[in-house]
Amino acid sequence: MTYLLSTSYAGNLFSSTNMYLRPQNHHTATRSSFGSHSSPIFTSYKKKLKGPTTVFATATLASREVGTSQNSNGYISKPKKVMVIGGDGYCGWPTSLHLSNKNYEVAIVDSLVRRLFDHQLGLDSLTPISSIQNRIHQWHSLTGKTMQLYIGNICDFEFLSEAFKSFEPDAVVHFGEQRSAPYSMIDRSRAVFTQHNNVIGTLNVLFAIKEFCEECHLVKLGTMGEYGTPNIDIEEGYITITHNGRTDTLPYPKQASSFYHLSKVHDSHNIAFTCKAWGLRATDLNQGVVYGVRTEETALHEELCNRFDYDGVFGTALNRFCVQAAVGHPLTVYGKGGQTRGYLDIRDTVQCVELAIANPAKHGEFRIFNQFTEQFSINKLAGLVTKAGEKLGLKVEALSVPNPRVEAEEHYYNAKHTKLIDLGLKPHLLSDSLLDSLLNFAIQFRDRVDHSQIMPNILWDVASRKPSGIEPRL
Amino acid sequence: MTYLLSTSYAGNLFSSTNMYLRPQNHHTATRSSFGSHSSPIFTSYKKKLKGPTTVFATATLASREVGTSQNSNGYISKPKKVMVIGGDGYCGWPTSLHLSNKNYEVAIVDSLVRRLFDHQLGLDSLTPISSIQNRIHQWHSLTGKTMQLYIGNICDFEFLSEAFKSFEPDAVVHFGEQRSAPYSMIDRSRAVFTQHNNVIGTLNVLFAIKEFCEECHLVKLGTMGEYGTPNIDIEEGYITITHNGRTDTLPYPKQASSFYHLSKVHDSHNIAFTCKAWGLRATDLNQGVVYGVRTEETALHEELCNRFDYDGVFGTALNRFCVQAAVGHPLTVYGKGGQTRGYLDIRDTVQCVELAIANPAKHGEFRIFNQFTEQFSINKLAGLVTKAGEKLGLKVEALSVPNPRVEAEEHYYNAKHTKLIDLGLKPHLLSDSLLDSLLNFAIQFRDRVDHSQIMPNILWDVASRKPSGIEPRL
Repeated sequence: MTYLLSTSYAGNLFSSTNMYLRPQNHHTATRSSFGSHSSPIFTSYKKKLKGPTTVFATATLASREVGTSQNSNGYISKPKKVMVIGGDGYCGWPTSLHLSNKNYEVAIVDSLVRRLFDHQLGLDSLTPISSIQNRIHQWHSLTGKTMQLYIGNICDFEFLSEAFKSFEPDAVVHFGEQRSAPYSMIDRSRAVFTQHNNVIGTLNVLFAIKEFCEECHLVKLGTMGEYGTPNIDIEEGYITITHNGRTDTLPYPKQASSFYHLSKVHDSHNIAFTCKAWGLRATDLNQGVVYGVRTEETALHEELCNRFDYDGVFGTALNRFCVQAAVGHPLTVYGKGGQTRGYLDIRDTVQCVELAIANPAKHGEFRIFNQFTEQFSINKLAGLVTKAGEKLGLKVEALSVPNPRVEAEEHYYNAKHTKLIDLGLKPHLLSDSLLDSLLNFAIQFRDRVDHSQIMPNILWDVASRKPSGIEPRL
Repeated sequence: MTYLLSTSYAGNLFSSTNMYLRPQNHHTATRSSFGSHSSPIFTSYKKKLKGPTTVFATATLASREVGTSQNSNGYISKPKKVMVIGGDGYCGWPTSLHLSNKNYEVAIVDSLVRRLFDHQLGLDSLTPISSIQNRIHQWHSLTGKTMQLYIGNICDFEFLSEAFKSFEPDAVVHFGEQRSAPYSMIDRSRAVFTQHNNVIGTLNVLFAIKEFCEECHLVKLGTMGEYGTPNIDIEEGYITITHNGRTDTLPYPKQASSFYHLSKVHDSHNIAFTCKAWGLRATDLNQGVVYGVRTEETALHEELCNRFDYDGVFGTALNRFCVQAAVGHPLTVYGKGGQTRGYLDIRDTVQCVELAIANPAKHGEFRIFNQFTEQFSINKLAGLVTKAGEKLGLKVEALSVPNPRVEAEEHYYNAKHTKLIDLGLKPHLLSDSLLDSLLNFAIQFRDRVDHSQIMPNILWDVASRKPSGIEPRL
């Protein structure tokens, strides 16, 4: 599959010297994939738009030095430069917008392979999404802010080197990995692709930082799934162990449960080593399951809309349940439904990344934050969606289906997540109003739902509307 | 570099139906790389040779079912089939011989890339080694035993699949990895090569077992270096942790200190997952630093001679010290020399692997053994070699050189290693006689020593015979 990823393109869509485009009024944008009129979800935000310099604040930062910095002479220096690898994806795109909004100078590096996965698996985002070029163009039209765009594969070190040398980032946010556990478990070639792509891509990022900008702070997206479900409290990256009368603080033991989650474990070990051996500085954001779709920035215009996955491969639990509820499909609870994980709103994803950038790790430090705000079991989420759906007049039922994963369905789970709060995170907890808005969002787009995507690996008995087994997979 | 590894060849050098070769008398072998007369080191063993059925016992097995098995009717079943991946290497070749000697049916799978590394880096084994074809041929000549040979790269799943389908192993011993920490630290391309080669190769082995022979027991070579140097006792793979009033037994935390050691950490996590998810059975042999060169089988004939690395990339501490002592080079102690590790004689490597095969893990079990017999600091080893060298009339001095590695030079180290003893391992502890024999071995071959190989990454002041720094490396 690698050959499909090897084409690279590096360009600055809005080079100030060559091709500066004056901010367009978003109403006149002609490349919308939504047609000529705007859909209702954007209405509430449009009113806020005053012009290209509008800034919408979301995160409260512990540090005041955001985006631009002021030295002792009062001189405002250049904005901090942040490279967002994987900046076209579900988390990467709203993060890029948020950082740009916060006056960071943003460059997106992306191979766009996530869009290829959709083509290959016959999947599609519930929300129509624009091309990355149009997204960046629209952002510029609305705000006057530019983003650089480097299209290429970070496993290609020549490409990555050029991007680093050209952009000279102060921080790199690395979302650029194959991020679906089910995808990594489809077959051998996808398992190998996932580990190769993620591990080698991250190695290349580490070498690029070492070679071209040792000061650069790496903010790497890990996952809470690295820890598995141990029978003791989960700490943030490290645990102090007393054993046979001696004590040490060691990396928290990892028990990942898919080739994807394992790839993140591998990354964590590699990054830890380079911080120790080379003095790099890195923050590993062990993120929980993200829900939601809108941030203040993506909601500004249809062309900025984020992707929304509801399929069995890339869709995450809460988002998927909302779509199922919207179309009258039973909520598909894997097994007993006692599986408990950390969750967070996508608006907190972008906040957390900004907090990590604004408060960088020290040289030689490998810092690990557990990035989630609340814990839920699958049954609890299904219950919340059922209740919220009924309020909207939907008939919602939750149904236990055979679990395609090897995982404990009833277990202890208590994971710490205080470090980002300490830095100033103001969580958007899962509220009735968020659930209402997410369900309304799904209802709004329900004509676009492809029912065959909802549970592609569960065999479905059409007559009884019950699952009859699991499709043979890995 | 990958393209260099993609040629594959699968063949049975001694097919009983097509090309059976009668055992040759080793005195008439014409393909010796040693010339027409034997060197003295082999004399003592030749006398034992009675014919092709000669068996030399070394390991005491806890299980009596070795190689052949006898069922309740007294019927002798086929020998157990063992695939040795990396069977041409320093540990793999003597292991293959030992298992063949013990009546296991052996197939060697090897890309021979280790020989390519020598060419590329300008290195060579102290001992002249025969081609793998001649080695197998000679073994057959001496003992009448055949080994199958599959030449190819296990990262090529098509090749590996064919080898599995053709040989149908009962056990796979996996030595087939790039195994040098310094090699993995030379530059980015070798770091990436090491992790790609080792991680993807092992993933392919796991998929091949799952797909073609789920009963097969994987015996995987790990390394004690996965644990690093924690300030608490090192257990065998798992540690029971009591934390905030709850207790669980979890994978022992890993702190590897090179891209090579990290690749083994990644393998361990991947294998653990497949045991849990697919029910595979595996034993991870976290091996210490191996010393010595001869086993009873390799000593039978010059063409069976094992390789002996003394260079700064592939040579391990004790072997390297013996060569340095033999040629009058100072023993190069990295830094303070307090670095302590587990060590074992290569005769124990082959014993341990046989014990693991003879006593397989259960389905779903991921078993970890710490495979070493004694702990030594570098200073202690240098002292032992100095003393042994002086007895032989050599003038030996130990010299601290700048440490090219990032590692603690003084630290606590206490690693458990009882599980292989429990299975019946009879260790060959480091004795005066072994040191004498190793030094004599180095003296015998000292005309072959290339002085520039001894410390290729230490800058050397020829006039003062002192190191002047570390060559700029990774």
